[in-house]
Formats: sequence, structure tokens, C-alpha cells
Amino acid sequence: MTSITEATTDMSTFETLESEVRSYCRSFPTIFDKARGYKLWDVEGREFIDFFAGAGALNYGHNNPQIKSKLIDYLTNDHVVHSLDMATVAKEKFLQRFQQVILEPRKMNYKVMFPGPTGANSVESALKLARKVTGRQTVISFTKAFHGMTLGALSVTGNSFKRHGAGVPLHHAVSMPYDNYHDDVDSLSLLERYLEDEGSGLDLPAAIILETLQGEGGINVASNTWLQRIEDICRRWDILLIVDDVQVGCGRTGTFFSFEEAGIQPDMICLSKSIGGYGLPFAITLIQPKLDKWAPGEHNGTFRGHNLAFVAATEALTYWETDKLEREILRKGEILQQALNSMTAKHPDTEPEVRGRGLMQGIAFGQEGFAEKVCAAAFERGLIMETSGPDSEVAKVMPPLIIDDEGLNKGLAILEESIQAAKNTR
Amino acid sequence: MTSITEATTDMSTFETLESEVRSYCRSFPTIFDKARGYKLWDVEGREFIDFFAGAGALNYGHNNPQIKSKLIDYLTNDHVVHSLDMATVAKEKFLQRFQQVILEPRKMNYKVMFPGPTGANSVESALKLARKVTGRQTVISFTKAFHGMTLGALSVTGNSFKRHGAGVPLHHAVSMPYDNYHDDVDSLSLLERYLEDEGSGLDLPAAIILETLQGEGGINVASNTWLQRIEDICRRWDILLIVDDVQVGCGRTGTFFSFEEAGIQPDMICLSKSIGGYGLPFAITLIQPKLDKWAPGEHNGTFRGHNLAFVAATEALTYWETDKLEREILRKGEILQQALNSMTAKHPDTEPEVRGRGLMQGIAFGQEGFAEKVCAAAFERGLIMETSGPDSEVAKVMPPLIIDDEGLNKGLAILEESIQAAKNTR
Amino acid sequence: MTSITEATTDMSTFETLESEVRSYCRSFPTIFDKARGYKLWDVEGREFIDFFAGAGALNYGHNNPQIKSKLIDYLTNDHVVHSLDMATVAKEKFLQRFQQVILEPRKMNYKVMFPGPTGANSVESALKLARKVTGRQTVISFTKAFHGMTLGALSVTGNSFKRHGAGVPLHHAVSMPYDNYHDDVDSLSLLERYLEDEGSGLDLPAAIILETLQGEGGINVASNTWLQRIEDICRRWDILLIVDDVQVGCGRTGTFFSFEEAGIQPDMICLSKSIGGYGLPFAITLIQPKLDKWAPGEHNGTFRGHNLAFVAATEALTYWETDKLEREILRKGEILQQALNSMTAKHPDTEPEVRGRGLMQGIAFGQEGFAEKVCAAAFERGLIMETSGPDSEVAKVMPPLIIDDEGLNKGLAILEESIQAAKNTR
Amino acid sequence: MTSITEATTDMSTFETLESEVRSYCRSFPTIFDKARGYKLWDVEGREFIDFFAGAGALNYGHNNPQIKSKLIDYLTNDHVVHSLDMATVAKEKFLQRFQQVILEPRKMNYKVMFPGPTGANSVESALKLARKVTGRQTVISFTKAFHGMTLGALSVTGNSFKRHGAGVPLHHAVSMPYDNYHDDVDSLSLLERYLEDEGSGLDLPAAIILETLQGEGGINVASNTWLQRIEDICRRWDILLIVDDVQVGCGRTGTFFSFEEAGIQPDMICLSKSIGGYGLPFAITLIQPKLDKWAPGEHNGTFRGHNLAFVAATEALTYWETDKLEREILRKGEILQQALNSMTAKHPDTEPEVRGRGLMQGIAFGQEGFAEKVCAAAFERGLIMETSGPDSEVAKVMPPLIIDDEGLNKGLAILEESIQAAKNTR
Repeated sequence: MTSITEATTDMSTFETLESEVRSYCRSFPTIFDKARGYKLWDVEGREFIDFFAGAGALNYGHNNPQIKSKLIDYLTNDHVVHSLDMATVAKEKFLQRFQQVILEPRKMNYKVMFPGPTGANSVESALKLARKVTGRQTVISFTKAFHGMTLGALSVTGNSFKRHGAGVPLHHAVSMPYDNYHDDVDSLSLLERYLEDEGSGLDLPAAIILETLQGEGGINVASNTWLQRIEDICRRWDILLIVDDVQVGCGRTGTFFSFEEAGIQPDMICLSKSIGGYGLPFAITLIQPKLDKWAPGEHNGTFRGHNLAFVAATEALTYWETDKLEREILRKGEILQQALNSMTAKHPDTEPEVRGRGLMQGIAFGQEGFAEKVCAAAFERGLIMETSGPDSEVAKVMPPLIIDDEGLNKGLAILEESIQAAKNTR
Repeated sequence: MTSITEATTDMSTFETLESEVRSYCRSFPTIFDKARGYKLWDVEGREFIDFFAGAGALNYGHNNPQIKSKLIDYLTNDHVVHSLDMATVAKEKFLQRFQQVILEPRKMNYKVMFPGPTGANSVESALKLARKVTGRQTVISFTKAFHGMTLGALSVTGNSFKRHGAGVPLHHAVSMPYDNYHDDVDSLSLLERYLEDEGSGLDLPAAIILETLQGEGGINVASNTWLQRIEDICRRWDILLIVDDVQVGCGRTGTFFSFEEAGIQPDMICLSKSIGGYGLPFAITLIQPKLDKWAPGEHNGTFRGHNLAFVAATEALTYWETDKLEREILRKGEILQQALNSMTAKHPDTEPEVRGRGLMQGIAFGQEGFAEKVCAAAFERGLIMETSGPDSEVAKVMPPLIIDDEGLNKGLAILEESIQAAKNTR
Repeated sequence: MTSITEATTDMSTFETLESEVRSYCRSFPTIFDKARGYKLWDVEGREFIDFFAGAGALNYGHNNPQIKSKLIDYLTNDHVVHSLDMATVAKEKFLQRFQQVILEPRKMNYKVMFPGPTGANSVESALKLARKVTGRQTVISFTKAFHGMTLGALSVTGNSFKRHGAGVPLHHAVSMPYDNYHDDVDSLSLLERYLEDEGSGLDLPAAIILETLQGEGGINVASNTWLQRIEDICRRWDILLIVDDVQVGCGRTGTFFSFEEAGIQPDMICLSKSIGGYGLPFAITLIQPKLDKWAPGEHNGTFRGHNLAFVAATEALTYWETDKLEREILRKGEILQQALNSMTAKHPDTEPEVRGRGLMQGIAFGQEGFAEKVCAAAFERGLIMETSGPDSEVAKVMPPLIIDDEGLNKGLAILEESIQAAKNTR
Repeated sequence: MTSITEATTDMSTFETLESEVRSYCRSFPTIFDKARGYKLWDVEGREFIDFFAGAGALNYGHNNPQIKSKLIDYLTNDHVVHSLDMATVAKEKFLQRFQQVILEPRKMNYKVMFPGPTGANSVESALKLARKVTGRQTVISFTKAFHGMTLGALSVTGNSFKRHGAGVPLHHAVSMPYDNYHDDVDSLSLLERYLEDEGSGLDLPAAIILETLQGEGGINVASNTWLQRIEDICRRWDILLIVDDVQVGCGRTGTFFSFEEAGIQPDMICLSKSIGGYGLPFAITLIQPKLDKWAPGEHNGTFRGHNLAFVAATEALTYWETDKLEREILRKGEILQQALNSMTAKHPDTEPEVRGRGLMQGIAFGQEGFAEKVCAAAFERGLIMETSGPDSEVAKVMPPLIIDDEGLNKGLAILEESIQAAKNTR
């Protein structure tokens, strides 16, 4: 691996014209031009391996050729591209295909809502509906949760920096400890105590919203048992269970839905990011039919009929017609885990902890700022990786699901090199 | 004009698989397949003139050929499609072109923020920043305002049906009377009285947010004087002025920004819908440089780097290199106004009132439910039109800006026929 | 009138040991020892005429001898003094007597609630019950309203200084313009427009709360017509009408309830201050029987059985067995008005405006800080008067109702002298 | 003990004229007339031993003769009774005496605020000031806490029935587990985890408010260690510590302040109930001098100058000039504890648990509704006792502190009888 640091790119347009809020372009200071599969190239022709995958939006890789060809066809033939929420051929096909490829084989019975093109739209729609159906207002979320940046989604997000950005107090949400949050606390035993105690100060909630694996929160994995206990609590207390599978759905952990192994049946499921197939803005909310109490237009939006996304999403479902992708994810997940275990074993002084499952794994480092150094060193060496966790303490490995072994191993080699490099800069 | 009612389309996929929240597909019950310019065709080959224009997202028409060709090129050459908020060539071009074609010629100095792909994202980002910069929480909005469906945007929206959908009380916003809201009230005189009176119960607001022409609220036009007085109040009280130009920007009223004629300089401007050029999800927030106090990543999101939208938006700006489009909008706006005046003059019993300006006009009917009948009759005759206003009392005419005279006149002829037809069904 | 400024009192105990929040002791910097009727004496033996009357808590004068004798008897015979909300003989007598002397003759049918010993307790209880009964949350209050300092009462209070003290945003209340708030606004026409417009941003409120004469807000009088229109709006929209008669009830404006002349029938009435007869902490909430939907103990408190207050309140009702007091208030109110008119006519340069009715009147001065100077000059001359209004712009005249003509005239003479003195200090 | 059930009292006045919210008069359905020390007599002459003590407002007994004589003197000599917050001789004496008898000997340095006459006023004032001083909004309270019924105090109260009465959502408060709330949870370890984790969803709070012994919450005692850890957390995180000693202060647990044994130094202390000496409405808020950042009048109220309460409170402080009362409370507390242990040992089938300390003790019964039966049986036998806890599961013993051994033993004998009687009615 030769270093690519000598080349520089002129970022001045962004520095001059774009708002200070820009973020990833600061961690990865170059101008990207092309992309394919698990690779990106910048304007200088430098190649990067992508272990970030659009924060989970690119499970099928950049510019997936099969999907691309469908998109070009669709555009070329002047099929309707923007349709509000009118019926279109493309939307019909997506609905049918999602039913056929995803829901039916899993014996899942859900209505599909198009809540707008982002994960936050999906979360906002689920919270609204949960409150409408139950007539209650409080929603339980969990420590380190991340559900989005609009005001409703932010109120169930744990990160204090993001919350503070709201500029107003965030209400109607209670943050309870996530699985393994604290050794001295059995989180669900505490939750249940609050529910049954008329003096706990906790109003009976409309819903519990959770990620089965907290990506932004620092790669925290909830056990199947914990998820099953939550579902049981929800059933006994008549609380709705919302699973936010925006980042860890669509195969990230090995199955299409992240909770399949736990065998739970959420009342609502939020999907976005990779459900769009090609990185196009798209989200859906899955709703148990008995809860589909929306009035027409009660939640609407301009981009609920983004037909390019329907086309891409429909084609992407092809990956789920067989179990091939699932098996591959598990296989590569094991390679990844072994590699991470192996490389961290060599650096005990970094107080590393390997976390995650499937193709969402990472290393939490004990030292403040170390994960950021690792990712910076990786970028210099041609690998895109991001940190996560409230203190950016985790270096996250999250490649496109379709990455081949060569790419995976090459990326991991750079990662190992980068850990050493980060130590050297201390 | 031959009626097309005899043909029917099978809507069962939508009725079975999609959520009850679906809305426009109920008003326009057919399955659309193709579109170009101001026309749509359904699966049965029926042609429709589009006087709705994607609720303002299709100012340049469906599948605009110039933009389409750029999109296909971009896709074909594997330029990066999804890039989070990293720097890309496509984004750089958009920033430069927007600066050059829009801001500089208007002597406007704004930083561009990519807040996520929807108008609501833009509104939420503007509200957050206004609260951060001022350290205040209250925002003044106006009666009949519509700013979006996520919790922050909904709190400044007037519509009680939409508000009720929140499921929680909406706070930190005070709804003041819009221009001409009520004969017995000088709205800004009242607002100023509230501001100067230490006993009014109104906390000094962070910002005032407004649409210069309320599309969803029933085609209510604010006068230039009213807008200038608002700006003056904002300056004197150190309140930020946010203009939501999501629907009426990008030329809808004749100029690129709807407030150019009024000569005001908002502190922040929200743009979405047609800024995306091709109906692709896209939004920007324009921010006076001195207010750009965001911390990196304080507001983020997965789809802030939707490069197809950058490409389309960049190409669409070509329309603004000369004043040709502006002049055409004004010319066609006058045709439209004369036609509406003429046809309403024939039906005084419907208590019609022609409202709006540019290519956002409409007829408010005095009778409950009449506007909906008109739009239903229009659909049967091959014209897509929607109602607006809290009681759906306005039949709204909002064609693509690029509509030719033939299309405009044909659509208006159907509208006139539809008013008569609606009367006949009473 | 000899000036009493030369004598000074040692206020050091208060300055050293009491919180900075202390307020009236700063305007009236002496230590009071004795009081009777409309007079107070400080430790130096200086006599003061009281035109403040405990902010309305001393309508029957200080240490009213009839009431005093009942209190001493009650104490001497060891009747129960503190009884939580258990039944006592003293409470029974109050209930019966209030029914007999106040409610029955006015053909009023209300249940009596003991909400705790302060006006704010009464307001909080009324707001709670209104929200419970209607299932709605918003309450409409008015500009310049004052309803109390606890969080619920503060949310319907207009004063920004008081509101700011909450330290948290105040919600669930909308502040509408009071009668004659602004020349360019017909306040009730606007309110009704908001109610009927589904796009106004105003949720259907649980209640409207108002003072018929705003004492703290600057002596603003609502006309009978305005009150009748409010009642009519409440009936038509099924909104509860709460009259806060804490300060202006118990005869202050000439009748026991301030709204008797207007002929309205509030759904709930808040009484405190002079209802306690002797200045003892006491409050009641009157509730239309059909609205008395409280669960037992749903609102409780330790001092709801303050039996000394029951005894004093019961005895004070004797004043209402005939119309003598009412006639006297009106007669003295006219003397007061004429005097104020006469003295202000001599000082047009102070831009005076005489406001109020009954024995709640005052002079609003145009010049900032002038009313405070007048009150300070009055104190130096042996007269206790306070300012009101959000900018302390009104010098308020509010003597005990039982003041005799000698006291009234003497006080008014000091007031006139004080206006001149205040001018001299400019 | 002869049963007194045959006699009945006519409660019809209360049933007819008073609101349904009435509460204790339902548990003790008779009309009380006289009271002295630890005894009450009803209109039929029936005598009751008082193990309720005005919910803690009558620590010095009913109609304490020394205090009574001071009150009668004060009234007789026409000293000022109602003085708003002006300076009076009576207030000066209270301030000096409280300083001299309570604060100085304990080396405590606090400013005294008169927040209004109720415990809730004191709590509301402390919350306001904590938010003002810190500029933060969130307050941490604890499970089963009770702090009052006005909206601000209610927001930090745990009881769901009381909270629900608010009619609006209660915000800005987070309810954390109290000491020994749950076996599986180390409550302060969890609290600290939330504070240090930037992703916990808990905003840095302005204050922590707590009762050292939760009376209304079911007689839950916090250990000294737990209190010390809380104080330590507050110091390290710069969070204000507010102790609500409204019910358990003034000697209830053996020392004047309930936290003296723990040795902590709260930033603010709320006192009411027995601070008034004679059961008169009165409250004070003690504030560390450096935190006394109130603007004059920022929190005010009509009954902050209730001079009868100053007189009674001043006289009551005589009890604290020596340690005699303290020793007596401890001695009688031990008698009480032994008696409760002994009588519960005889009834293991009632699943009893003796709780509390000093003269605030009680028996929690495992069976639903049993404590209420015990208290009802006690009332029939001439003993006033109330239940506490969110499910009324605790029979509370809380006599006046000045009860003599005869009274205590007689009451305890009735209690024992009543437990047996309650079992018999099952």
C-alpha cells in the first residue's frame, strides 16, 4: 500500500460556498468523482476502498450495474419520475415485489407506507401513528439510540450534541438503559418496575422504539433474549414495538431484517438507506394492518413518489430471492470478526473491544481520540472508515455487503496498518 | 374533449398493500406510466394535462429532456451517486453554478446548506439554526401556513388536521394573522403591539417564518408592502426572517425567488421541490454568512449527497441564465388570470374568487365541496388539478412553468367545462 | 400633611437574612407593626393610609374588629384549626353561609372546591379541571393577564418578566388581545376567526380564562359587551369560561362578583384574597355542578382546611347580607373617579389617563417611571400605593372597601400632592 | 376501647355543596369540632387520637397552648396580620429567631425566602431559581416522589394519578430510581452512568430534588450513604441539590432537618407544614447565599406576609432551643418501632413490612386494600391514620411529636386491634 497523502485536492469551493455544518467532507478531504462496487475514485484518480457504504445506504455497492441498467432504461423511456403519491407502474411493481420476495416468505403481514424519502421521515411517521393509535404520548427509547435529526426523531435520540442542536427542549420521550448499558443494572427489570409502579413517574408509553444493533451509538448489540423480553413487555402492557431497521436492516447483520434471528414481530418497522438499492433517497414504514389507522393524507410529503427509487429498490430485491447473499454476509462477517480479533490482540495497550455482528462491526478503543486517528490514517492509505459512538470511540467497519474477499482483506490490511500508524503518532 | 371515464384501472395492489395514508392516488385513481413536459399518460394510454406539477416540484416539466440526458450520462459513466456529505464533482458544480447563476446576479450573499432531501428538512434546519444563533425558542408563523410534516416543521404549520396528526402538543410557535387574514385586524400592527408590550405573553421570538404566497393554505398572496413591513420589524427587533420558498420559489411567481419584487433580504431561505430540477428529492437552506454558526455535523443526514439531484439541479439552472423564462411566466400568468376571471364571471353563483400570481393561481369557491367536484370533473376530462386551503375550497392551477400556450389553453378549456359539469352534479 | 421622611427604620435584618426576591418592602422601606381598617402604623409610630389593601386581600380593612372577635373566640375555645380537608364545623358553616348569602340570592348554582390557600391554587385547579373535562389542552388567556406564579398559572400570565422567571418554556396557552388592546384590532372578531378557521394554527381550547378588570396588567377594564361576546363564543364552541375574580371579586368593582353587571355565567370562578376576610390565606374555586368531575383527591394539598380562614370568611359574608356595602362602593368609586379626573386635569403634561371602576382605579402616566415616582412620594407622605402594568406605568388606587370618606379624601389629597412632588423631582 | 360506629354525623352539607375532589373527609366521615395536642373531638363529642398530624403540619400538636396564647395576643393588639411582603415586626422576629435557633447552631448559612404559604410554592420557587442560576431546564426527581400539586411541583412528582390530573404533559423532569427502588439496580451508579455518557439522552440537569424519606410515596427511607453519594454527584457535576423537607423536616425524623445525620449541605431546602407551628399556611425556601440571584419580585404572591404564621412559627422554634424534643422523638420512635415490629410479628400472613424512622413509620402490607381496611377499622375505634404509597399499601403512623406515652400506647393498641379487625372482615 503506497501512501496517497502527497496529492492534494482543492476544497475551496466547499469551504467558501457551503455551510459550516458540512461534516464527512472534513474527515475525507478530497473530491470524489466515480464509484463502483466497494470502490471510490477521487478527481486525482486515487482509489479508495469503502468500509463506510454510505452509512449503510450502499449495501449493494456503489452504482450496482444491474440496478443502473434499470434506471437508465426507466429514464430513457420517459416513465414517470416524480409522481407525488399517485399510483405508478414503478410503485406497483415495488409493492408487489416487496410483498413477494420479503414479506411472504417470512410470513410477515404488513402494510407499506411511503413516509417521505428519509429514515427520519419513517421514524416520524411511526411515532405519529403509535401516538394516534394508542392515544398516548410518551415513547421509550434507549441510551445511545440514533433515530434522526428532525424534531420528532431527535427526541428519541440519545446523543447530547445532536439533541442540543434542536434549540428547544425535546419531550415525550424517556431514555431507558439499552442492553448491557451498565453492569449494575438489569435494564429490562428496571423498565418493567417502572411500568408496574404507579409512582414511578413514567406514563404508560405509546411505543418502545429501538435499534437491534446501535450503529451510530457505538456498535452496541442487543441480545436475542433482550429483544424477546422487550417484545413480551410490549405485549403485556399493550405498548407498540417499533424497530428502526434503517441502518441495520436490508441484510447488514446477515438477514434482511435485523431481528429475524430473535423471532420478534414488531408492530412497525422503519426502513430506509439500502432499501433504495442504489443510494437514492427512499424510506418505507411497515405497519401491522390492524394499526393502519391513518386518515388519507394525514402524513404526506412531496417526495413520496420517487420512482427512480422504486425502480432501484425493486431490482435490489433480486438479491433476496435466494439465500446466497445471506450466507455470504455471514461468511464475510466471520472473516471480519477473526481479522478484528487478531489485529486487536496485537495491540492490547489500545484497550480494544471488538463489537458487532454480520458486516456491521468495529473496534472500540479505550483511549480518547484514538479511533479518529485510526480512521484518518486509513483515509491516507486509501480506506474510507468512520467512527461512531457518542465520543467517536469506535472505528466502524461497514463495507458494502457485496464486497469480495479481495476487497475485504485489502481493507482489513489497511486497517491493521492504520492502527499501528495511529500508535506511532501518539 | 371526449370523456375518459369509461376506462378503468385496477388499483387493487395499492388498496391491498399500501397504507391507508395514501392520498393523491385517491383523487387521481389511475396508474400512471409515462410523462413528459406538461403531460402524463396512464397505463391505458390516456393522456393528462398536468396543472399540478408535482405540487411545485416539476417547474421544468416532467422528464425534461436536457436534464434527462445529463442524468443518463452521469449514471452511465459511474460518477458517484450517493456520497453522504462528502465532496463530489457534481456537488462542486452545483455550488458554483448556483452562486454564479442565482446568487451573484441578484447580489445575494448566502452560504448553501444541504439539510436533507425534503422541504421539511430545510425548514427544520432553519428553525434549529435560528434558535441556536439567537438563543431564543419561539418562532412566529402565520395562519394557514404550511411548512412540512416532521415535528419541527409541523409546529409552524397552521392546518389543524395535519397538526393533530402529530399526536403530541406542538410548541414554541405562535401563529399570527397573515396578510389580509381578517378585515378587522391590521395583522402587523397587532404583531408589533405584541412585541413592544412586555405584558403581551409573547416571548421575543428567534425568527419569523413565512411563505410569500401560501399555496397549501389556499393561494393567499402577501403584498410587497406587508413583506417589507415584516422585514422592517425583524430588523428593529433583531428577529431572524426565514422565507420558505419551497413551493413558490424557483420561478413559480415569475422571479427565481418569490420575494424579489418585494426587495427583502431574508436571513434564511428554504428551497426544495423544483430546485431539484427533475422532481428528485433535494433541498437547500440558504444562510446569511454571519449566521452560519453550525458546528460540523450538528445537523446531518444520509441523503445530503444525492448526486443525481445535484446534476439535475445544476442543469435546471440553465433556465435562469437569461430572463426568458421569467418573461414567459409573467406572460402566461396573465393569460391564466384573464382566463380565470373570464370563466368565473360566468358563474357568479359559485361565489368564485380568483387568487394568486404568476403560475400559482386558483379559484376559491364559496360553496363547500365545490372545488373538489371541479377537480374530479377535470380529472375525468384529462386534467390533473388539486384543491388547496384548509377546507379544500380552492381549485389550484399550477402547471409546469414550461407549459406552452396550447397546453395552457387546452387545460383551461377543460377547467371551464369542469366548472359547468360540477354545477350540473349539484 | 407633615413629611415623615426624616425618620428611618433599620431594615438590616431583612437585607441580611431574607432573599433578594423581596419586593414590596423595597417600595415601602419601613417596618410595620400595627394596622386597623385603612390604616397602618410602623414601629416608629408613623401612620399610613392604605390605598393598596393587601393587593386586594383586605377589602374589609385590616384587623376588622367583628372578624377579629370571631377569630379570638375560635382560638380560645380550641376549635380545630388545621384539618386537612376533613369536615369541620367551621367549614360547614362557611359552605352554608356562602350558599345562602352569595350564591342563592344571585341564583347561581356552583359547587365549592377548596384548592389550597392561594389564588394560584385556584387557577391551577380550574385549568386542570377544564382540561380533564374537555380532554383538550390549550387555554386562551389575554394580553396583560395575571393569574399567578406557579407554573400552570404562569403559563396564562402575560408579563414577560414573571414568565421568564419560570426558567422553562410555558406552553398550552395562547395569549389573545384583551378588550381595547389595540385600535386596529377587533379582538373577539379575530378570536372567532381563529376558532372557525381550520388553518389558523389554534387548537380548539379547553377554556378561556380572563379577569374582567386587569389589576396587575394596568387597570384595563373589559366592557360588558365584550364579556357577553366571550360568553357567547364559549357557548357556541363548547369552550369553558373561567373568570379569575381573585383580585376584583368580593366587591372590588361594586358587586360581589365583578361580572354581575355583565350578566354572564362562568363555568368556573376563581376567588382568593378578600374571600378570606381578614387577609388569611384562602381560596375557593366555584364549579358548575355538571363539570365537577374530579376524582377524590385528584387535586389536594395540606392547607385546604385552614379553619381560621373559614371563620373569617364566614363572618365577612355578613357584609353581603344587604346591599349597603355595594352602594357605598359605588358612591366612593364616584368620589374617587371625580378626584382622579380633577387632579389629572391639572397635569396634562404627565399624559395621564384615568382607568378602572369601583374602588379599583388608577392613573396611567405617559412618562416612563413617573408612576413610580408618584408612589414613592406618596409613601413619604404617609400613603401606601402601588404601581401596576407591565412597565409599572399606572399608579393604582385600591383602598379597603370600608374606607370612610375622611380617609379617602385624605389619601387623595396626598396623591395630588405626590403628583406635584414627582413633577418637581424631574 | 368501645366502638364508636353507632353514632353518625350528617355529612350532607359537604356532599351537597363541596366539590367531589374532597378526600380525607371520605376516609374520616365525621365533623370535627375541637382539637388539642394529639386529640380531636367531633360534634358528637367522640374523641380521636391523631396519628396523622395534619399530614405532618401538626408536629407540635393541635392548638398548642403556648403558641395559641401568642396568636391571641397578636390579634388582640391589632398587630398587622396581612402585609404582603412588606417588613413587619413579626417577620423580623421570625427571621432573627430562625437564624439564631436553627441555622447558627447548625453552622448553616442560608437566605430565607417566603415563596407563598404552601409546600408547593416552596418547591416551585426552588425549581425556578435552580433553572435561573444554572441556565438549564431538566430536573432529576425520584420514583415515588411527592412534591406538590401545582404544575411545576407536579412535574417532579411520581404518582401517576396525580400527574394525570395535570391534563397536560409534564416536562423538564426525569424520574430516576430512588434508594432501594429495585434489587437489580444500583440507582446512583445508573444515574452517574447517564450523566457521564454523552449518548444517554439525559441533558445535564439544573438540580436534583429529593425527599430523604418519602412519606406520600410509601415511607421509603434513603440511607445516609445514598444521600452522601447524591451530594457528591451534585458537587462533581455542578448540579444543585434541593431537599424537600416539607413533610419530614421540623423534627419528624428526630432532628430539625431530616438530613442532619447524613451531614449533607443542600443548595436549597423546602420547608412548609410544621414550620408554621400551628397548622397555619406557611412555607420557606432556604437558599445558599451565592445562589440568591432572584430579581426583586421575580417570584411573588399575596400571602407571603402571613403574620399569624410568623408569630406561630417563631414561638414553635422554642422547642428547638434545647435537645429535649429531639431526644424525645428518638425515644418515642423506638417505642413505635418496637410496637410495630411486635404487632406485625403476630400477623405474618398480612405480609407486613415495618418502614420509616423517628415518628414517621408505617406498615406496608402485602395484600391489596388491606392497609385501607386497617385505617378504616382504626377510625371506627377512635384513631386517625392514613395510608400512603401509590397503591395505598402502607398504614402510616405519624403522631404529633409532642404526643405523650399514654397517647402513643393507646393509639398503638387501637392499631393492633384494627389489624385483627381488618383480618376478620376479609
